[in-house]
Amino acid sequence: MSEQSSGCPCKNVECERHGKCEHCKTNHHSRGYLPACERLKDADGNAIMPVLGNFLVTQVAIIVRDIETTKNKFAAFFGVKPPVHFDGGEYSVTQTTYMGNPAPKAGCKLAFFNVGPNVQLELIEPNGEQSTWQDFLDTHGEGIHHIAFGVNNMDEKVAACESLGMICTQRGKYGDASGEYAYLDATADLKCFIELLEGYKK
Amino acid sequence: MSEQSSGCPCKNVECERHGKCEHCKTNHHSRGYLPACERLKDADGNAIMPVLGNFLVTQVAIIVRDIETTKNKFAAFFGVKPPVHFDGGEYSVTQTTYMGNPAPKAGCKLAFFNVGPNVQLELIEPNGEQSTWQDFLDTHGEGIHHIAFGVNNMDEKVAACESLGMICTQRGKYGDASGEYAYLDATADLKCFIELLEGYKK
Repeated sequence: MSEQSSGCPCKNVECERHGKCEHCKTNHHSRGYLPACERLKDADGNAIMPVLGNFLVTQVAIIVRDIETTKNKFAAFFGVKPPVHFDGGEYSVTQTTYMGNPAPKAGCKLAFFNVGPNVQLELIEPNGEQSTWQDFLDTHGEGIHHIAFGVNNMDEKVAACESLGMICTQRGKYGDASGEYAYLDATADLKCFIELLEGYKK
Repeated sequence: MSEQSSGCPCKNVECERHGKCEHCKTNHHSRGYLPACERLKDADGNAIMPVLGNFLVTQVAIIVRDIETTKNKFAAFFGVKPPVHFDGGEYSVTQTTYMGNPAPKAGCKLAFFNVGPNVQLELIEPNGEQSTWQDFLDTHGEGIHHIAFGVNNMDEKVAACESLGMICTQRGKYGDASGEYAYLDATADLKCFIELLEGYKK
């Protein structure tokens, strides 16, 4: 008796992993969502998917006052060469908005460490102008600011988060225009800020 | 000409990855440290290793006031079943110390979500008694508290962190006695708290 007939709800019978439960689960979990057999159902019997399409944390970011000093401390702690840090980008490229309004002065310096197969530790030094980064520094001081998730269809995902009561505090493009980000204040429900990241397909 | 003779500094010629640079790098990076060819050297020419033995972030933890409510919000956001939450454990097992002194009343509730191949999102609800968790809640409110790293030889690693100026705020065993943890206040240099985790070998 095949797994399908014994209860496997997957309809993708042509998948190379079909009938190989552990392979299937590992594959889905690694992509950040559950296989059909593990998905919850809503009241209408429809499978529930993650709001963002996945639940993979790809970055943990720390707001710092002096990126040069802190990146050197982390590099020594990790036994690696200090990464080059760089400017978040020119407004002509980033088109940063803060609380929905153009924020040409908002800026930061950035540095990244790889701290796992799918995770970066990010350091962010705000530039003193109003931004979601500066707000945090002014309110909380230096510390862990957000966790980030990769998404597709940014506008749709931001709207989905807003429909849950999250507040989109800042959006913009990467400094090299290769993608875009959005920050959501999810402190009411998730007790943290989250960032959505979307790299543009090449 | 072999890679070894062309400059590969690895002396482990019997390794199955020897001479296969990309395999070797991927293997070392996945374990959280650099291969010989990428390691920095100190003034005496000795290879520098991570202070903790690796630089893999395995947990990101959020301090919350009401774990039941917040875990349900995260579960809905991730499209997964809410995880069971549980008590951090009895003092007779945990032997919790706070700032070096016995802390029989310090406690919390815990819940975990898998958010990547090697990363968990942890929710922690302090119990109102003095602890590193309650300190954070009282000082900062709810929010992201720490990042965690797996280690071997806990005492040695805590001492190494202390020699760098970090302050060990709390230590204890897991509630099921299967391992132990230590919190380091690394806010002076790394601008965050870190947790070290050591599971005991079975």
